[in-house]
Amino acid sequence: MTGEATVTLAHGSGGRSYHQLVEEVFLPAFDNPFLRELNDSAICPVAGSRLAMTTDSFVVRPRFFPGGDLGRLAVCGTVNDLAMSGAQPLYLTCAMILEAGLPFRELRQICASMAAAAEEAGVAIVTGDTKVVEKGACDGVYLNTAGIGIFPDCSQPLPQRLQPGDALLVSGDLGDHGMAVMAAREGFAFTPEIESDVAPLNGLVKALLAAVPDTHALRDATRGGLAAVVNEWAEANGLDLHLQQDALPVRQQIRAACELLGLDPLYVANEGKLVAAVPVGHAQAALAALQAHPLGRRAALIGSVGQAGGRVTIDTPYGARRFVDMPAGELLPRIC
Amino acid sequence: MTGEATVTLAHGSGGRSYHQLVEEVFLPAFDNPFLRELNDSAICPVAGSRLAMTTDSFVVRPRFFPGGDLGRLAVCGTVNDLAMSGAQPLYLTCAMILEAGLPFRELRQICASMAAAAEEAGVAIVTGDTKVVEKGACDGVYLNTAGIGIFPDCSQPLPQRLQPGDALLVSGDLGDHGMAVMAAREGFAFTPEIESDVAPLNGLVKALLAAVPDTHALRDATRGGLAAVVNEWAEANGLDLHLQQDALPVRQQIRAACELLGLDPLYVANEGKLVAAVPVGHAQAALAALQAHPLGRRAALIGSVGQAGGRVTIDTPYGARRFVDMPAGELLPRIC
Repeated sequence: MTGEATVTLAHGSGGRSYHQLVEEVFLPAFDNPFLRELNDSAICPVAGSRLAMTTDSFVVRPRFFPGGDLGRLAVCGTVNDLAMSGAQPLYLTCAMILEAGLPFRELRQICASMAAAAEEAGVAIVTGDTKVVEKGACDGVYLNTAGIGIFPDCSQPLPQRLQPGDALLVSGDLGDHGMAVMAAREGFAFTPEIESDVAPLNGLVKALLAAVPDTHALRDATRGGLAAVVNEWAEANGLDLHLQQDALPVRQQIRAACELLGLDPLYVANEGKLVAAVPVGHAQAALAALQAHPLGRRAALIGSVGQAGGRVTIDTPYGARRFVDMPAGELLPRIC
Repeated sequence: MTGEATVTLAHGSGGRSYHQLVEEVFLPAFDNPFLRELNDSAICPVAGSRLAMTTDSFVVRPRFFPGGDLGRLAVCGTVNDLAMSGAQPLYLTCAMILEAGLPFRELRQICASMAAAAEEAGVAIVTGDTKVVEKGACDGVYLNTAGIGIFPDCSQPLPQRLQPGDALLVSGDLGDHGMAVMAAREGFAFTPEIESDVAPLNGLVKALLAAVPDTHALRDATRGGLAAVVNEWAEANGLDLHLQQDALPVRQQIRAACELLGLDPLYVANEGKLVAAVPVGHAQAALAALQAHPLGRRAALIGSVGQAGGRVTIDTPYGARRFVDMPAGELLPRIC
């Protein structure tokens, strides 16, 4: 054994190590103008149209959890990446890596969940691929979905469009997905059971963009939670972002579970929550549009964009202001 | 333990069990007109254009082998799936599942191979995703590439377009990829070393379609080898296909290695060879176009399409005719 540098779980976190991996390995290798944007969806000109294109692999453990499963996650994750870029999701591919010995019953259940989620989102799974590896060479099932969507003729939400004064909103309670998966994995019995929020958000985005076409930025708060989104935005345009802790919607049960486990809901993954930045004059319209949608009823105004700086702060209920850092390592591996 | 039905390595073979999995699990779950075509690329209408869309995961073992590596394979495989549908490949996504402990050196090498193959094929890798799983939860690196392409304004090669009398061609020597990977995996030392043929075939397809726009069907002979392609075609349109064993280009070294190991080159995977069906009057033009391209120099006429029946036969040099069946199980797991 040499002391050779190797990949660690932290590189999959969506946090600092992950960004380092992208900057130091992937960008130098693959550099091109599409990739360089580093958004969840690439924007690709095709025959006079602009297409959004995205991909995501899903390795969550366990593959069945309260509120969802790997299949539902795989469809919603890719639908949401497309929706957050402002595109209307159209078609998905699905590639499966299966471990020999996987019960057909589980495979059928995952397929049924994928089909139901695709119908809910209004997308078609148009092509697929299946590989089977030996027992022990993967953990049951790993899914990949890639997707394409088209952009409507309006300005596109992009982190670079944040402006000082913009209002920040979140579409609902934070931390449900991460805590649901963690509880299922570790066998914690919470009463009532904590359910994942995994859901396709393209309908919610459509409602928001209809109310506020000039929405500056959109992102689903998955790996690394809300903290990862606001830090990526602050880094992308060099502006400070300010959050109000009091304003963050977190269900009491999640707050208690996080406290018990020493976790901060700000950093816990969601799979059905978006973060939006809108011009301050449109904040109430955005809030109303989100709250009028079944998936946005608990939406809240949570902060604002400040001046140059590129850091994220949060005001605590006790009058203190502290920095919210990019998640550094991997809090909860294989949570989404 | 119950006697519950489970996934086996045979379900990943591209052969009979795989087709059963598709028919019995995937089609009932995801049924839609795009998927039902069951071609390697789906045809998706987008904003007045027709897009081809495909996905493939790559779990080959070992990940470095003479003539290529997992990265080159992942780009060429998806480029080729698009090219075989008659589409011009444009954009690729790349999703990686990495095992904690993977040396960065290997990751960089795989990325460099992907970038080089993308340049060779004239496609851009526009977006990506990375997941890291614990040691033991995958075998080093699993890659997924999905891709889109556009169709030129000409008739599209499809297995359903085969006609009695069509000539069958293959673009070069059979069996190189499968034998190279197998030799690398098992530590067989062949002299000279057997190299994989992994290559992007979109240029070769372009040359063929320029010479014979009315090419009826195209397919790359990957999992299950040439035998899988001709059986899928026979099944797709219910016609018999006849091969001439004498005419099959197989390098002497591969023939000897296959004999030694009890394998039939007809069933061994290729990653840089296509099979084409053209109207018999265009057979010589097709052959000339293939042979004029660096990747098709050893192209050959290998057989013809017969009457109704839906079976594949091969004429041996000794005057016998035998059936060529769809590969039933998994000959060489994780070969592509």
